[in-house]
Amino acid sequence: MGTGTDSLRENVYRANMELAGSGLVTGTFGNVSGVDRETRLMLIKPSGVPYDQLSPAHMVPVSIENGEVVGSDLRPSSDTPTHLELYRAFPCGGVVHTHSEHATTLAHAGLPLRCMGTTHADHFRGDVPVTRPLTEEEVDGDYEGNTGLVIVEALRDAGVSPEEVAAVLVAHHGPFTWGPDAHAAVENARILEYLARMDIHARLVAPDARRPDAFLVDKHYLRKHGKNAYYGQS
Amino acid sequence: MGTGTDSLRENVYRANMELAGSGLVTGTFGNVSGVDRETRLMLIKPSGVPYDQLSPAHMVPVSIENGEVVGSDLRPSSDTPTHLELYRAFPCGGVVHTHSEHATTLAHAGLPLRCMGTTHADHFRGDVPVTRPLTEEEVDGDYEGNTGLVIVEALRDAGVSPEEVAAVLVAHHGPFTWGPDAHAAVENARILEYLARMDIHARLVAPDARRPDAFLVDKHYLRKHGKNAYYGQS
Amino acid sequence: MGTGTDSLRENVYRANMELAGSGLVTGTFGNVSGVDRETRLMLIKPSGVPYDQLSPAHMVPVSIENGEVVGSDLRPSSDTPTHLELYRAFPCGGVVHTHSEHATTLAHAGLPLRCMGTTHADHFRGDVPVTRPLTEEEVDGDYEGNTGLVIVEALRDAGVSPEEVAAVLVAHHGPFTWGPDAHAAVENARILEYLARMDIHARLVAPDARRPDAFLVDKHYLRKHGKNAYYGQS
Amino acid sequence: MGTGTDSLRENVYRANMELAGSGLVTGTFGNVSGVDRETRLMLIKPSGVPYDQLSPAHMVPVSIENGEVVGSDLRPSSDTPTHLELYRAFPCGGVVHTHSEHATTLAHAGLPLRCMGTTHADHFRGDVPVTRPLTEEEVDGDYEGNTGLVIVEALRDAGVSPEEVAAVLVAHHGPFTWGPDAHAAVENARILEYLARMDIHARLVAPDARRPDAFLVDKHYLRKHGKNAYYGQS
Repeated sequence: MGTGTDSLRENVYRANMELAGSGLVTGTFGNVSGVDRETRLMLIKPSGVPYDQLSPAHMVPVSIENGEVVGSDLRPSSDTPTHLELYRAFPCGGVVHTHSEHATTLAHAGLPLRCMGTTHADHFRGDVPVTRPLTEEEVDGDYEGNTGLVIVEALRDAGVSPEEVAAVLVAHHGPFTWGPDAHAAVENARILEYLARMDIHARLVAPDARRPDAFLVDKHYLRKHGKNAYYGQS
Repeated sequence: MGTGTDSLRENVYRANMELAGSGLVTGTFGNVSGVDRETRLMLIKPSGVPYDQLSPAHMVPVSIENGEVVGSDLRPSSDTPTHLELYRAFPCGGVVHTHSEHATTLAHAGLPLRCMGTTHADHFRGDVPVTRPLTEEEVDGDYEGNTGLVIVEALRDAGVSPEEVAAVLVAHHGPFTWGPDAHAAVENARILEYLARMDIHARLVAPDARRPDAFLVDKHYLRKHGKNAYYGQS
Repeated sequence: MGTGTDSLRENVYRANMELAGSGLVTGTFGNVSGVDRETRLMLIKPSGVPYDQLSPAHMVPVSIENGEVVGSDLRPSSDTPTHLELYRAFPCGGVVHTHSEHATTLAHAGLPLRCMGTTHADHFRGDVPVTRPLTEEEVDGDYEGNTGLVIVEALRDAGVSPEEVAAVLVAHHGPFTWGPDAHAAVENARILEYLARMDIHARLVAPDARRPDAFLVDKHYLRKHGKNAYYGQS
Repeated sequence: MGTGTDSLRENVYRANMELAGSGLVTGTFGNVSGVDRETRLMLIKPSGVPYDQLSPAHMVPVSIENGEVVGSDLRPSSDTPTHLELYRAFPCGGVVHTHSEHATTLAHAGLPLRCMGTTHADHFRGDVPVTRPLTEEEVDGDYEGNTGLVIVEALRDAGVSPEEVAAVLVAHHGPFTWGPDAHAAVENARILEYLARMDIHARLVAPDARRPDAFLVDKHYLRKHGKNAYYGQS
């Protein structure tokens, strides 16, 4: 492991602990990974190890190329093939999977997370799509890898880029989010859950409420992202 | 009491305290028991004693055969006959009863907890059934024992084994869960409540949502249980 | 003040602090009183004093007979006349008023808290009624006293005794509960809120759900109350 | 900075920290300002600085007259022009903006916060209005300033004064509240969220519930506000 990967190891460990303290996961559910694009190695939480027993040394390196574990005796998270597909398809640095309550409820209900206002538009440029259900062949085959592929498909079908909408709900399963690094992906998982809480109640209290105009969504998204951003101190 | 029972006494006490700290019970509600299949003794929380006054020595031993208290001056939980019926019918090591908010709400509404996704399928292989209401004769007679019998009946009518679905909602009452030991039964009570929170909102936001396919439910259940499990480090 | 009243002063202070820590009140909302039936004095929280500045000495003695403050320079809670009417009509020792979220929501909606199961029946023998709205004359006159009178009226119209159902929801206002002493009244306020959380969701998810049979409600109520009770250690 | 402004700087800082600890904001969302009417300077939270790095010295002074920063290198909150419009139109001393969950959900749904009972009437004399959506011209132009103008418009259209109803929901965005000073504006944001939680559930459980009579609303509002108030110790 070079210095770059040591620092990634620390960051991925910290992002996993951040997730554990976020209220987004229960038990050993949930996992965070980060990638080193130079060595093409992903570091991810080991499978089924309680959060309070984790250390940076437990993070399992996996090759993006062939999915093989490199230099660790631990088994990586069972969702590893899903993470790998996302790193192959998206230019992101970190991926998070949770079963957070309200985002998962929308996934159970087969509903996208609608963009209903500026809190959403500050983070995601439009609705967060829900995938189609996997077929029996996809489940019986490389189930976790195919989960990654339907995420990529859902985003492509929605016509949005993975930078603009850094989250997808997997039908009957739960949310995956990503971002420039592992920490940012956790932040996206956190805001996704907050938005899902609001959208479920908005759907119940006003099913036919008017959607925000596209110019309002763009205004907020671009106020925080891109070259004309004017939020923050930099 | 032999060494085996001492260790069980400690485990049942700890599982009761775990339950007390879980947010699943209020006041003196809720109780956990564990069984020693060799001595055929169940240990259970005493009736109406506040959790902060409990110690391992307070756990009351009751004979599975005849329901009699063995070597204790304390009265066991008033739900004792329900626990006994479950130990007689199911090959389990621990039983938990709570009035946890959302699982109890489904029981009030007379609705089963639907399996809507993989979080559920990771723990229970299909819907968690709700019992029929007890008849006047059953309530006036051995009420608590009859509560156990309708739980066994509900599971049998649903056509599932107590290993596959380790929980039932008692109509107008609340959930009972079980597991290999007292701790596992508490974990099942915890996940049951989490699933109930999600199912209530899923029912409200999309009453006719498509159910997950049986092959997806089986995939997740068998990924964690049985001889082909591939979750965790063992 | 005799010793009896000193001890009551301490109990009423403690019950107010218990209420403050219960999550049932926000800001200076909510108040607890207790009564000494011998001296016919009620002790109640002063009006608008933050909970963290209260001490036993702040509890304001008020005459049940004529509503006058006895030996204190503080103004009693503005809800004092409501408490007095309840002590005149009911044989209770403590009264609590909160604006707790879900019980108040039912009061806003003009709906009673339905008895839907055994958690309710363990505490209240049937539905908790909601009052009629006060008339303009009642609001313009002795508003707080008239609030007490409509509570008494609602319970009488429901045909239940104040021992069996120790709570009423005041329409467009919020809950009042009572009990043998101030502490028991706070416990009733706490369980009332828990039941209201469940009933709101049960109403939403299954508006026409079957009610529990009267024999089940009586079984549970009488298992904990009255001469044939068999819950607890006594 | 004179002594008056130093004390304001401390108060605005404290109110921002109070907001951070209130559960009403996530991340760097939300901002509090206060005004010195003599110097015509507003002090406001800097843009995008995490709450745990704030100090009184970070509060940014902005001229009410022309919106220019006075004596600070920090960029003020991006919502600054909204705050300025409110200070120009309303005789208030503090303004708060949050994305608190339930008030924002009503804003997403395009619904006002209805006055359904006395908890509401104790603080706001009637419904809290929701604004119309901004036009494309308003969003493309001085977006944040125009947000302030539609708030003023919504209150005027509702026919209520900013003293009687010290809050407005901005459509597809979230709540703004105000008050005599920054602390009072935070308190209004807190109670607004509590009322929104209750109104969402009341709307769901009883969409056609009878509204409280105007004489009840006035009774409660005037019991706490104005020259005939009789709540508290003064």
